[in-house]
Amino acid sequence: MIEKINHIAIAVNDLESHIPFYRDILHLPFDGIEEVPEQKVRVALFKIGSMHIELLEPLSEDSPISKFLNKNGPGLHHIAFQTDSIQNELKRLSDLNIRLIDPVPREGARQSKIAFIHPASSGGILTELCQSDE
Amino acid sequence: MIEKINHIAIAVNDLESHIPFYRDILHLPFDGIEEVPEQKVRVALFKIGSMHIELLEPLSEDSPISKFLNKNGPGLHHIAFQTDSIQNELKRLSDLNIRLIDPVPREGARQSKIAFIHPASSGGILTELCQSDE
Repeated sequence: MIEKINHIAIAVNDLESHIPFYRDILHLPFDGIEEVPEQKVRVALFKIGSMHIELLEPLSEDSPISKFLNKNGPGLHHIAFQTDSIQNELKRLSDLNIRLIDPVPREGARQSKIAFIHPASSGGILTELCQSDE
Repeated sequence: MIEKINHIAIAVNDLESHIPFYRDILHLPFDGIEEVPEQKVRVALFKIGSMHIELLEPLSEDSPISKFLNKNGPGLHHIAFQTDSIQNELKRLSDLNIRLIDPVPREGARQSKIAFIHPASSGGILTELCQSDE
């Protein structure tokens, strides 16, 4: 089942020019920067309540974030829902004929397991499922 | 100060075709539909943890949501941070030379007071401040 929102991801061209707004203006606790090679991104993490804001900077031109930025510029990229069992949730969604980008979970930031639902099944909104120990 | 995320807003062409994904597939508690004439939107509300997901449907062609949809199609529209005093927060941001779309709070959904920060001051990400009793 869906427990909460795990994070909101924001695509940016470079972390360093976007971090000050969240850290120094909004005063969100800054949890540092992490590389997630499998997603081809560098991620700046901000804790807010029981969730995170993730700023995503592409590591290469073939990163999905590069494609998003080329089309839209910086902006809200996806919303990630936390589940207690991503395997069960993917099975449940698949049984409901929901299209999945990732039928098998991949590695996300903060040692999480993640999988994206295909936008065709989520009204055009990029939606992630996420299992983590948080 | 910023306490938590109050809501994430998603722009959609029509609520009825997007509600089933959140209500019937993700099983988020559905809090009903509200009209916010001042923002020229109809809002479908889903509670998740201590925050909401708001689906925003434009009430007219001159709604800011219509303009967003014409340019981008359905998508994540803005992120709203909850503060205990929107007046104090707007004053604080103004003193930091942050540009504000709304120097004075307006009426939002669920009897909240809201104000938008200008994207020029928030890295292109539409960002709202929100004061509510929740």
